Amino acid sequence: MTDMNRRNAVLLALLAPFAMSAAAQAPQPASTMTMPDMGPEMNNVHWEGNEQIAMLMYPGMTVMDLIGPQSMFGALMGAKIHLVAKTLEPVTSDAGVTIVPTATFDTCPRDLTVLFTPGGTDGTLAAASDPATLAFMRDRGGRAKYVTSVCSGSLILGAAGLLAGYKATSHWSVRHVLAEYGAIPIEARVVRDRNRVTGAGVTAGLDFGLMMLAELRDRTYAECTQLVSEYDPEPPFNAGSLKTAPPAVRKAMEELLAGFTRQAETLAATQAHGTPAA
Amino acid sequence: MTDMNRRNAVLLALLAPFAMSAAAQAPQPASTMTMPDMGPEMNNVHWEGNEQIAMLMYPGMTVMDLIGPQSMFGALMGAKIHLVAKTLEPVTSDAGVTIVPTATFDTCPRDLTVLFTPGGTDGTLAAASDPATLAFMRDRGGRAKYVTSVCSGSLILGAAGLLAGYKATSHWSVRHVLAEYGAIPIEARVVRDRNRVTGAGVTAGLDFGLMMLAELRDRTYAECTQLVSEYDPEPPFNAGSLKTAPPAVRKAMEELLAGFTRQAETLAATQAHGTPAA
Repeated sequence: MTDMNRRNAVLLALLAPFAMSAAAQAPQPASTMTMPDMGPEMNNVHWEGNEQIAMLMYPGMTVMDLIGPQSMFGALMGAKIHLVAKTLEPVTSDAGVTIVPTATFDTCPRDLTVLFTPGGTDGTLAAASDPATLAFMRDRGGRAKYVTSVCSGSLILGAAGLLAGYKATSHWSVRHVLAEYGAIPIEARVVRDRNRVTGAGVTAGLDFGLMMLAELRDRTYAECTQLVSEYDPEPPFNAGSLKTAPPAVRKAMEELLAGFTRQAETLAATQAHGTPAA
Repeated sequence: MTDMNRRNAVLLALLAPFAMSAAAQAPQPASTMTMPDMGPEMNNVHWEGNEQIAMLMYPGMTVMDLIGPQSMFGALMGAKIHLVAKTLEPVTSDAGVTIVPTATFDTCPRDLTVLFTPGGTDGTLAAASDPATLAFMRDRGGRAKYVTSVCSGSLILGAAGLLAGYKATSHWSVRHVLAEYGAIPIEARVVRDRNRVTGAGVTAGLDFGLMMLAELRDRTYAECTQLVSEYDPEPPFNAGSLKTAPPAVRKAMEELLAGFTRQAETLAATQAHGTPAA
């Protein structure tokens, strides 16, 4: 009975954000608990952990790059998620969402399970040029078990010297720029090379997040989170990649982002060689 | 030339968050602008608008329910997005992300293009029981062009009397509860019935958001946003719905959420009939 009750309590605490109310507001005496017959698969799941996860925040970040993965990491019972910025002043994203940090570069734990950075455009190039940000990423990234990003956040990893010799991906508009930092750009939704895990643009953070849950715990844990997140996508249109978007849409968006692409190329070339590429 | 320059400026401002840096940091004289041949499809796109979009925030909301749609609405050039809460005090989500509101129930515009609410668990039931929140939703919802939600947020719409006689959906754990509020529960990713648009659980907010962009502007605008968001999902596992999840995963998560489901049933029955269902 002890094991069964404990397992039930663990299940109730699993996916903590979503489950919190069920666990906190509807406590039931052990005698009336209805234990599901969960089968052997559920007995071996690593429900409990103690990961230290640091997610970088900076002005102009794309908030969806942050929240996609955070919504998956948030289901890791026992994990601690630190939203880290230079100071505790609220940080405003590119689309105007202002989030309060929970840690600074100084107070963030030194030894991390996961170091993560979101992407963006101008804000990301500013962060990738900022000595304090790069020093923080270099320091924590040197010891973290996993060094990760979504979208153009991989430019920050690259600028911090954390991708040299690694396969990596990024938003389609700047993926090729990673080569300036010594990385091997790969066209894929999520790329893992040893302990570097990078996701493609914006919404790839959901796929990245689920892969990280499976890596940090196990596949069943990730599947449980996928079901509670109802991640059963049905994009109403088929324009999510350069390969599938209508040509006119592709052309317009490549043009739209051409300035950002050029700025990223210039920054990376300057950081890598001291001069912009010809 | 004026039309072409104007069109280019509009394109640069499109998807404002992502494009901001390109437009702001790399201004080029008109004479050096390289205009793409975008074809007739792009000339008819409704690049500019003036939507007023109010997104409810409350303690314990699921932040991904909010940010998925916000990341799509954020691409609407000319639109104003209001993150609305009872007060301007920062609001903490179920998974510990704290966001600063931009408007209160009092300062939120009275006439909205879109009224939206995210879901959650305990926080959602609290919001669905809160007279001030329900009064706000009822008032703005009575005049809004679109009344919308993602995940269990539809419980709040239901409690405010905004779904009576409408087809609607919700998170799988509480979809059936909508019937207590006079709605017709539908199992679908996004359900539209006249001006009510409701999404399924959590990540359905991305599909919901893209459908809303197509509704508010046009399909091409939504496709442009989909490409910039790189919304080309590749879930690493196939457990995102009750139909596809492994049976053990389904059983465990149904058990995990059973307490929440029961609380939602009780609340809805009490609000609908004055007494809990037998």
